[in-house]
Amino acid sequence: MATGTMPSRSQVEEIVRQVVTARLAGTRSGPGALAVHASARHMHVSREDLDRLFGPGYELTVDRPLHQPGNFAAKETVTLIGPRSRLISNLRILGPLRSRTQVELAFTDAVSLGYDDVPIRLSGNLDGTPGALVMGPKGVVELPEGVIRAAMHAHMSPREAAHYGVRQGDLMKLRVTSDAPVTFERVHVRVGEDSRLDVHMDTDEANACGLVRAREIVLFK
Amino acid sequence: MATGTMPSRSQVEEIVRQVVTARLAGTRSGPGALAVHASARHMHVSREDLDRLFGPGYELTVDRPLHQPGNFAAKETVTLIGPRSRLISNLRILGPLRSRTQVELAFTDAVSLGYDDVPIRLSGNLDGTPGALVMGPKGVVELPEGVIRAAMHAHMSPREAAHYGVRQGDLMKLRVTSDAPVTFERVHVRVGEDSRLDVHMDTDEANACGLVRAREIVLFK
Repeated sequence: MATGTMPSRSQVEEIVRQVVTARLAGTRSGPGALAVHASARHMHVSREDLDRLFGPGYELTVDRPLHQPGNFAAKETVTLIGPRSRLISNLRILGPLRSRTQVELAFTDAVSLGYDDVPIRLSGNLDGTPGALVMGPKGVVELPEGVIRAAMHAHMSPREAAHYGVRQGDLMKLRVTSDAPVTFERVHVRVGEDSRLDVHMDTDEANACGLVRAREIVLFK
Repeated sequence: MATGTMPSRSQVEEIVRQVVTARLAGTRSGPGALAVHASARHMHVSREDLDRLFGPGYELTVDRPLHQPGNFAAKETVTLIGPRSRLISNLRILGPLRSRTQVELAFTDAVSLGYDDVPIRLSGNLDGTPGALVMGPKGVVELPEGVIRAAMHAHMSPREAAHYGVRQGDLMKLRVTSDAPVTFERVHVRVGEDSRLDVHMDTDEANACGLVRAREIVLFK
């Protein structure tokens, strides 16, 4: 028997990680079928920080590919320590490497770690965000900043953006129809040549709207 | 230093439990100021089950009154055991006593406990819902059913209902403006003579919409 109050957050994540693409094949919206993914907390890491955490020249190991081409969940995890010495172990690293290290948490995670506030930001927009201590098997990195709650966003190709009539940086909405239907009012459009139509939300958002039981999901202006 | 992956779910709850009434005094909508409360997981208990859990004739102790007149968080807690022998300790009992025992969980809690599915229901609508094992200091109760995720709902007086032009059982919407703005599309209207205007959501929903940082909250048809 497991003990403690929340023995299996990982189970929650396992479920919400599941891609709902398949179940939503009936809600094709334009060029690509609309995929929606719930991102559990994770870290993107720079070359420099990976060297310090795992040793010089260390290369990430692909655990499984993600929906966006070239992106993957790595086998490697780290321990994250927040401002009040509380920690989250087994924080997953996502690849490939980035120019700056960035930690993405759900609000639940942030409070658990003792943060008073973690700003909602787009990926890469890290100025003025809180820091953290990160522990790897070979060393520790003290991040001066880089901890965010990721703003909900929709990856799409230029063709898909044209279909919706939107451009990079525009805002769209996402309506999730379930027993607890929700419209998310700010979904940031991120257009990339190699991108596939794909909305990313965090685990709090996925749990709130009952994503895994969704009957219909519509992305609209 | 706390250990484990989610050391302080209780902290999350403490924050989201905070009433946001005061911060939203500027968004008066009709007769009463709109209060929004996030309900952490809890249990309502019947006379019969309280007798078995705490001993014959036991009376609940008021820990703090809740926003709805006559309702209170009790000092008493129980341990809840789910279908896969996972447990949540310190599940708070809310008073007063009810005719049937009912456990209200967020989706996160339900998955943690090993439930495949916990239906979203209005309070008291328990037929066909999953059961649980509940442990108190004096005994154990095996609930054949009664575990739900509470559907979002708005308590209000008849006068407030008239103001909104709604009736018992109608559906309204709730728009929460924050850095992660959300419109909840199904808010059940519950009219009571002694009720005060007050929307109840669960912790998943509160975390998703950034309730504690909300700038404006509007309840509308």
